[in-house]
Amino acid sequence: MPRIAVDVMGGDYAPDEVLQGCILASKEIKSTLVLVGNEAVIRQKLKDTTYDSSKIEIVDAQDCITMEDHPVSAIRSKKESSMVVGLNLVKDKKVDGLVSAGNSGALLAGGTLIVGRIKGVERPALAPIIPTKTGNTLLIDCGANMDAKPSYLTQFARMGTVYMEECMGIKNPKVGLINVGTEEEKGNSLTKEAFKLLKEDDKVNFIGNIEAREIPAGHADVLVCDAFVGNVVLKFMEGFGMWVFSMLKTEFKRNFITKLAAALIMKGIKNIKQKFDYASKGGAPLLGVNGLVVKTHGNSKREQIYATILQTEQFIEDQLVEKIASKFS
Amino acid sequence: MPRIAVDVMGGDYAPDEVLQGCILASKEIKSTLVLVGNEAVIRQKLKDTTYDSSKIEIVDAQDCITMEDHPVSAIRSKKESSMVVGLNLVKDKKVDGLVSAGNSGALLAGGTLIVGRIKGVERPALAPIIPTKTGNTLLIDCGANMDAKPSYLTQFARMGTVYMEECMGIKNPKVGLINVGTEEEKGNSLTKEAFKLLKEDDKVNFIGNIEAREIPAGHADVLVCDAFVGNVVLKFMEGFGMWVFSMLKTEFKRNFITKLAAALIMKGIKNIKQKFDYASKGGAPLLGVNGLVVKTHGNSKREQIYATILQTEQFIEDQLVEKIASKFS
Repeated sequence: MPRIAVDVMGGDYAPDEVLQGCILASKEIKSTLVLVGNEAVIRQKLKDTTYDSSKIEIVDAQDCITMEDHPVSAIRSKKESSMVVGLNLVKDKKVDGLVSAGNSGALLAGGTLIVGRIKGVERPALAPIIPTKTGNTLLIDCGANMDAKPSYLTQFARMGTVYMEECMGIKNPKVGLINVGTEEEKGNSLTKEAFKLLKEDDKVNFIGNIEAREIPAGHADVLVCDAFVGNVVLKFMEGFGMWVFSMLKTEFKRNFITKLAAALIMKGIKNIKQKFDYASKGGAPLLGVNGLVVKTHGNSKREQIYATILQTEQFIEDQLVEKIASKFS
Repeated sequence: MPRIAVDVMGGDYAPDEVLQGCILASKEIKSTLVLVGNEAVIRQKLKDTTYDSSKIEIVDAQDCITMEDHPVSAIRSKKESSMVVGLNLVKDKKVDGLVSAGNSGALLAGGTLIVGRIKGVERPALAPIIPTKTGNTLLIDCGANMDAKPSYLTQFARMGTVYMEECMGIKNPKVGLINVGTEEEKGNSLTKEAFKLLKEDDKVNFIGNIEAREIPAGHADVLVCDAFVGNVVLKFMEGFGMWVFSMLKTEFKRNFITKLAAALIMKGIKNIKQKFDYASKGGAPLLGVNGLVVKTHGNSKREQIYATILQTEQFIEDQLVEKIASKFS
């Protein structure tokens, strides 16, 4: 049976919501959950909770990396933190994957420094799924590589292709490059050079540049970009979406008539909101690392922790890491 | 009286919609409009239209830069194009400003190559206004500088400050740097270095990094970034907004009940849509050029051409170019 470690002390709502997410997930998964964190605190919190103890283990980790810690220094100095202990469990193959809602920068740094890269991968990348008209698109990289080289982007394309093929069941996934125009010569020096490399890579079904306006159309299954651009797209989508829904709420609450309208269209609004329900979509794997490390949103509550654990079990079954490694061997 | 040139042959709906926008604007402005384009075509199109001929002149330009033309080569080779003729009118001070919906790259290149930069400005930048919770924010740069240097960003901050102060009446505008985190050490090499420069610039009210999630909140009056990131934010906002509204439309059209809801909330939806009505907001000036060049959306119809001409007259009255120049002297 697979074993999944969870960084119980990482995230804005740790440890309570993380633990509740674990309990929820333990009822549905085959894997054993390895809760990594302060054992006394965990035992105290779980005291009044009923759960299947055969599916839950605890690994003690007295320290904790906070959201304010400097990523690399924290990984290097906080050896007893739940995150570092969890990453070492992955490295030592004592678990098949790690889920963390903790400090993103630290997790990314730790993925590379502790677990290590897959041979042939220059830089691991964080790859969340974003909703689009046609379904879902993988946005890679959203985390690690702020100053990317063109070759990184082609590697992201390969890793993203494996993900969409193996985990999302998409045959020959279409790969697009986020750019400022559709023509080959458009862009900054990074995208111009990456375009050339992607065009020549026969391991990737490259469909060309995708302008930001066309991202929601979902023409591509995998969108590659440097982490700065990926972060801007991901976070702006979140912030802009919240703003639009808050404006709608204001309009619906205006008076009796608009409140009636709200009641009549409630289901429709829920349909739309569901598309942007990040909590139900789980987290994002750090692809290119020689072990499974899955990052979930810092503000994750139990539902998202639960979804991310289920997703992680799926990644293990799909042998995501092994299949990426096979593309670089 | 001011004189405003309009590139009649530029844009997806040129010349018809551009001409209609000019006629509409001519009824409200004090300026004389100088229509630059194929004179025979213009006269033919205006034949059955009533307008105040004392406020409209025509300058013949037989050629035309298309949306597909390579920017720099087009500016260099198509000397008789409406855009190049219009830019030369600005350069020779025969007009006080130029409005164009034509090939963006060509207009940006032409602004620098023909009109020239303000002394001290390294790179002109395209600066549109985007809607935010608190009102409007200037997004600079959105066009010209795909591979920016840190010093460009501080210059954008200064130019944006002048714009918001002089044209939007905002005292001591707050300047933010689009970044992937709020802390000073976050970002790519460009933003890390730009942060240091902005912090030290006493001509700019720098409030720090703004994460993409916070862009809609409108904490900053001026948001600086390189043109790649600016383009991604601007275009993604457009595409994502259109998608959300199209989903709403689908839900409202579902059945009798939802159609009733639509009727009851119609006004509210219009209120929201108005915030994103780019047509009414006009265009974006190319700041840093030693003359007034205003770009409006390639798909502009008469309303947006009209709005951009009125906005351009306002820029002339506000002496936008002169006031930017005074900050660099």
